[in-house]
Amino acid sequence: MEKTITLLPGDGIGPEVVTEATRVLDKIGIEFGHKFNYQTAAIGGTAVDQFEDPLPKETLDLCRESDAILLGAVGGPKWDSYPAHLRPEKGLLRIRKELQLFSNLRPVSIYNSLVSESTIKEEVVRGIDLLIVRELTGGLYFGEPSERLDVDGEEAAVDTLSYKRSEIERIVRMAFELAEVRGGKVMSVDKANVLESSRLWRQIANEIAEEFPNVTLEHMLVDNAAMQLIRNPRQFDVLVTENLFGDILSDEASMISGSLGLLPSASLSAEGPGIYEPIHGSAPDIAGKGLANPLATIASVAMMLKYAFKMELESEAIMDAINQALDSGVRTADLVYGNQEAVSTTEMTDTVLHYI
Amino acid sequence: MEKTITLLPGDGIGPEVVTEATRVLDKIGIEFGHKFNYQTAAIGGTAVDQFEDPLPKETLDLCRESDAILLGAVGGPKWDSYPAHLRPEKGLLRIRKELQLFSNLRPVSIYNSLVSESTIKEEVVRGIDLLIVRELTGGLYFGEPSERLDVDGEEAAVDTLSYKRSEIERIVRMAFELAEVRGGKVMSVDKANVLESSRLWRQIANEIAEEFPNVTLEHMLVDNAAMQLIRNPRQFDVLVTENLFGDILSDEASMISGSLGLLPSASLSAEGPGIYEPIHGSAPDIAGKGLANPLATIASVAMMLKYAFKMELESEAIMDAINQALDSGVRTADLVYGNQEAVSTTEMTDTVLHYI
Ligand SMILES: CC(C)[C@H](C(=O)O)[C@@H](O)C(=O)O
Ligand SMILES: CC(C)[C@H](C(=O)O)[C@@H](O)C(=O)O
Repeated sequence: MEKTITLLPGDGIGPEVVTEATRVLDKIGIEFGHKFNYQTAAIGGTAVDQFEDPLPKETLDLCRESDAILLGAVGGPKWDSYPAHLRPEKGLLRIRKELQLFSNLRPVSIYNSLVSESTIKEEVVRGIDLLIVRELTGGLYFGEPSERLDVDGEEAAVDTLSYKRSEIERIVRMAFELAEVRGGKVMSVDKANVLESSRLWRQIANEIAEEFPNVTLEHMLVDNAAMQLIRNPRQFDVLVTENLFGDILSDEASMISGSLGLLPSASLSAEGPGIYEPIHGSAPDIAGKGLANPLATIASVAMMLKYAFKMELESEAIMDAINQALDSGVRTADLVYGNQEAVSTTEMTDTVLHYI
Repeated sequence: MEKTITLLPGDGIGPEVVTEATRVLDKIGIEFGHKFNYQTAAIGGTAVDQFEDPLPKETLDLCRESDAILLGAVGGPKWDSYPAHLRPEKGLLRIRKELQLFSNLRPVSIYNSLVSESTIKEEVVRGIDLLIVRELTGGLYFGEPSERLDVDGEEAAVDTLSYKRSEIERIVRMAFELAEVRGGKVMSVDKANVLESSRLWRQIANEIAEEFPNVTLEHMLVDNAAMQLIRNPRQFDVLVTENLFGDILSDEASMISGSLGLLPSASLSAEGPGIYEPIHGSAPDIAGKGLANPLATIASVAMMLKYAFKMELESEAIMDAINQALDSGVRTADLVYGNQEAVSTTEMTDTVLHYI
């Protein structure tokens, strides 16, 4: 097959990890007889510097025309004091909305040879395989009004958490579809004892559940979920929740795997191209030093092959190679403790390539 | 001294743990020459059953007239399907608002003899001593509108996150005051890369910091904070945040201590009486069986002595007794693993009383 992929390297370590991931894609192309064409575009702080816009129109056009998008990371202290519309994150939020990427999949698993790296005890995290499905284009991230205002002569600020029925239905349905081919369990997380939007969410989740007789649905309050993810993460199969809860819980859950440098994500729409990206940030402090861990981005490419191109075997070949590379003992700086020696970003990729 | 305390036993295990805590108060009274008078009132589901109101006016009046309030817990499946204004939690939210309890203190520490109970590794949690200061009367819990509505002919729901300058100032100032007599560090947690209310929060936190030259202020995004609490909780001294973030992060942080049955809280206003309560819920499944751990409520009484009555020595006497009781090996069911034997709610209290 021939596929066109838009690369959005972004800021900080983004360009390094995206470059490494394309090396893996190329190797897959050779081994399995596919052709991957790349086109590169600007996003985030880099785009602000070049075009005074964190999401230039050209970038959006290129993305729309491609089969999938690979994103590095955006942001950095340089742009922290910029006005809201010129902040790198705004580019990310806008592209999610423009491409209607309502569904953010964040699988959390743990590589066998890293099971002792987590700060959570081995017996609690061993064999973890959970999937967080985060709503990505609604809630407090996009609700209006979101502004400063004057209340009783006093400075104030307001944000709005709102959800429409159709927005909740499509993300919950997606969670059920994914659970059907996984462990058959959906945990819907909300704050229904306080929020009206959560009560609507819970009601609709119950309705959707009727469509899936083979999947069980349970509800959990977000504060309890934050606890249960540490106490007993193995109880979860698919966890579905609204945008901001998903942001918080998925970062928390990433700690199960020992390093933020390991976890991939996919942001999907109903039809158009999705964005595949590591869940880690731009890590400006280590940018350009060959210290970044490329595995989260490489695993994101594995998700791309699976979800965008239906290349299951190719996707598994990558995940197997990552596992073997880690089993062979190579570690990037984020995974090194004590006197162990760290390999560079490129060397880690070389090892993965070796096992493909 | 003579003090009047309103007891709000509430639902589930609430009555049991409140009864045990008053036994500890009585012993303190005898040992230190104080007189504690109790008056009991209804809240939560019990109040709904009796008065069709989760916070009857009589309850509020009694609370207002007392020197401090000791609350057990509210809620249970029985009332889950009741309309919003008749739900047990509504009683809790209304009393917080009525008494203007804007500041919720949730200390997280770990008893030496329980350091191995946490699912987080011992070397990460040993010696933890952090204080979460949660804003308790603003944000999504109380913002208007919070309602169902019709958007483009579609069912929808909205909640509102709003903060006024004065609301942010008083809670952040409280955090700084507490940090001054602790480790001298405030970590303000927000989502300033997305929310306007967070940007106002951050701006005001920076202003308040100027009043406290001996305290350092840092900012952290809430998703990162959810991670750092597991990765390296020792970096925190005082963590201050808005209502819902505080709800999520404090429940998460409770896992550091190994059991939810251990952690106390205090909800304070500028002048009137505060509410002291365990952070655990009403645990209806174990109610009335003598299985509940009374230590969180007993530790809440220690907070009451310290914050409401300025009885520092008395407060320490309780905390020392809890430590010694645990060192002696007694464990309630929530703390028992393997073949160890569990003591009852009353026996745990007896052991604490023994060491006072
Ligand atoms: C950068 C930020 C706006 C973003 C978010 O909050 O969604 C990030 O934390 C993420 O999870 O992708
Ligand atoms: C019962 C519920 C409304 C409450 C809250 O969310 O504040 C509880 O979780 C708490 O933390 O005290």
